[in-house]
Amino acid sequence: MNTAATSLAPSADLPVDQYMDAVGRAARVAATAMAASSTAARNNVLLALAGQIRAHAGELKARNEADIIAAEKNGLAAPMVDRLRLTDKVIETMAESCEQVAALPDPVGEITNVRRRPTGISVGQMRVPIGVFGMIYESRPNVTIEAASLAIKSGNACVLRGGSEAIHSNLALWKLVQAALTQVGLPANAVQLVQTTDRAAVGQLIAMPQYVDVIIPRGGKGLIERISNEARVPVIKHLDGNCHTYVDSEVDLDLAVKVTDNAKTQKYSPCNATESLLVHAAQAAAFLPRIGKVFADKGVEMRADARAKAILADVPGAKVVEATEQDWFEEYLAPVIAVKVVDSLDEAIAHINHYGSHHTDAILTTNHPNGMRFIREVDSSSVMINASTRFADGFEYGLGAEIGISTDKFHARGPVGLEGLTSLKFVVLGQGEVRS
Amino acid sequence: MNTAATSLAPSADLPVDQYMDAVGRAARVAATAMAASSTAARNNVLLALAGQIRAHAGELKARNEADIIAAEKNGLAAPMVDRLRLTDKVIETMAESCEQVAALPDPVGEITNVRRRPTGISVGQMRVPIGVFGMIYESRPNVTIEAASLAIKSGNACVLRGGSEAIHSNLALWKLVQAALTQVGLPANAVQLVQTTDRAAVGQLIAMPQYVDVIIPRGGKGLIERISNEARVPVIKHLDGNCHTYVDSEVDLDLAVKVTDNAKTQKYSPCNATESLLVHAAQAAAFLPRIGKVFADKGVEMRADARAKAILADVPGAKVVEATEQDWFEEYLAPVIAVKVVDSLDEAIAHINHYGSHHTDAILTTNHPNGMRFIREVDSSSVMINASTRFADGFEYGLGAEIGISTDKFHARGPVGLEGLTSLKFVVLGQGEVRS
Repeated sequence: MNTAATSLAPSADLPVDQYMDAVGRAARVAATAMAASSTAARNNVLLALAGQIRAHAGELKARNEADIIAAEKNGLAAPMVDRLRLTDKVIETMAESCEQVAALPDPVGEITNVRRRPTGISVGQMRVPIGVFGMIYESRPNVTIEAASLAIKSGNACVLRGGSEAIHSNLALWKLVQAALTQVGLPANAVQLVQTTDRAAVGQLIAMPQYVDVIIPRGGKGLIERISNEARVPVIKHLDGNCHTYVDSEVDLDLAVKVTDNAKTQKYSPCNATESLLVHAAQAAAFLPRIGKVFADKGVEMRADARAKAILADVPGAKVVEATEQDWFEEYLAPVIAVKVVDSLDEAIAHINHYGSHHTDAILTTNHPNGMRFIREVDSSSVMINASTRFADGFEYGLGAEIGISTDKFHARGPVGLEGLTSLKFVVLGQGEVRS
Repeated sequence: MNTAATSLAPSADLPVDQYMDAVGRAARVAATAMAASSTAARNNVLLALAGQIRAHAGELKARNEADIIAAEKNGLAAPMVDRLRLTDKVIETMAESCEQVAALPDPVGEITNVRRRPTGISVGQMRVPIGVFGMIYESRPNVTIEAASLAIKSGNACVLRGGSEAIHSNLALWKLVQAALTQVGLPANAVQLVQTTDRAAVGQLIAMPQYVDVIIPRGGKGLIERISNEARVPVIKHLDGNCHTYVDSEVDLDLAVKVTDNAKTQKYSPCNATESLLVHAAQAAAFLPRIGKVFADKGVEMRADARAKAILADVPGAKVVEATEQDWFEEYLAPVIAVKVVDSLDEAIAHINHYGSHHTDAILTTNHPNGMRFIREVDSSSVMINASTRFADGFEYGLGAEIGISTDKFHARGPVGLEGLTSLKFVVLGQGEVRS
């Protein structure tokens, strides 16, 4: 058994810079053991963790109560307090998610694309863990289990930094993760939680390339911008989701109304909800009154350009205001949508590439070449034909898990599952070949 | 035809910050047109470029002569001056390489992994150009053509910053690239050369994430470290190549001598040459005298630990000195090799992961489990069984091209060909599905 398996977590009594350095070093040591561990061992940790969570539900709720009381005392808004809460249902869902992650195929170890070269060597690529990832998040303590379970499954080590408002819940959850790792004989330091709420710890976590290979932040745009600007390692992130639905010149109107409605109103807060609606001029008179009625009935405010406004103004009950330039950039996360009439597919694509956030954009069309041009030329992490932007999600895509969504073009793009936590290295299998 | 096709390159008479901003903006505009261009158009540009290079060989040599004269006047070392020189042979090789890149499969547009989901949508991934890359290099002007041809083939735009010592040659080559692009109707600004030798231009090029998606530096370790530290965009790079060859406890000694010899002595300057030799104690007495004789005959100095030194000291003519701690980290790029006896595969793997540069490492063994453990657990961009580390190369791997080598774990790792200049975006093909 590796000595890493029995190492203790660094003491949070150290000065923060020494503490974080020790955390980083311990993560790197644990990562090596995790990369060498078997699929069975990692799955057994996840099953053990599910058991730990169920067995300690009462303790989890008690520790969570300390966070809730503090949050209420600090005047945290009620929806934020709700997101903090570990109910029986949330606890059971955490346990089940560990079992589901255990059941996923192991992303690690596969060797692909092996080809014999004229020199005699065979060259392929092996999928291996990235190493150590840092995760910075706010509020919901179940993210601790999500991140820990994906780290374990993918053979990585991780350093978790949750919000200070959830520190008691996170510490209690972490204790169970450590217990599950130890139970199976894998290093407890494969998952570390930053035990101090000192903000300097975050600054250091994102600037230790010798220990941390990638940072995954989850939270508001401000947090993510700050982290991206200061990070000295790659960041898997999306800043915002200004998603578009474009209704093309040739379209099934019933389909367009149904899909646009879903893309905007099925939920207002997710990053994959549509925020801007573009309508080809040839369909504006037919389509806008119908979707305008849906939005009017659901209380969705429409920020429209002059042409769209002229049509929407006639819809009974519609809240229509004139769009400003800023509206085309906006991620409302609310019952508000920007609406614009465009004269061509080219104009739609140019608008999306200029004002969008490169997250998710959809075309609704019956014209095949238009659909293919749209998905090729719109420069976004997810592009869709005749589907709701709300589908942009790791589970809906069949990734089995989602650690985040990336709008960057490097490495992982779009919803990031286990594969985004891995890397490919080249393997060469020879019989003594030399280069001439 | 896109208006981008006829846009002029920004004027280098502008102040450097305005100039680089204009270069970046022009690259982004050109990148959009390149991403939408056809395979045939991009291949035609490459064939036209080959023709341009051959047709203007005399002019290229004349402009190159200006660089050579300046270099000699500035006292540049003779090998550096040689690398600058555009001979007839170098010129013909540049033209041929354009034709070879044209003949490669188009990496862009392919949709893979399409799977039907239970909701009815089909989800796949489309390979698309990254967008804009910046390339920073020194000396050899033919890199201008290499980078330009890979940018064109992969549907990207690029901004090239060559060394000031090659500015006349690079400007002349760039003129031909622009002519080839224009000839086919693709935007001339798809390939831009930074026309000023002002160093501030580099600082700005690597800090314009709004225009540049990735930086690829080629040059000395100092240059690459500086760029990595200051870049605000991802960098595809390797700092150095401290490659290892490990001779295992069970090994074919003839094979081990042949491969180790090749890995070290076939060429001393490449980054994939072996710099450290590890030998299992069980083979040290049999193997070291034989390889020691090869090295002695070729004048390779051996920096050996105590156990290796005791054996190698008996080899007639061997230059053996005691290794210092620093030797285990060293990339000599010279007829020098570090030699160490280890007691186990574990020790070899730990040594490589600690002292190595995560570039390329090989095990020579007849033991299957040992080989598999080595390639799994050694954390390097290329890992090999029974082959010379000198094979770590885009052409040897069959990538058809090489824009650089990456020792990072993100995105591209190991030799980087056309695929490293692309990204995968998710495509969703639906028939009006909505999320419930």
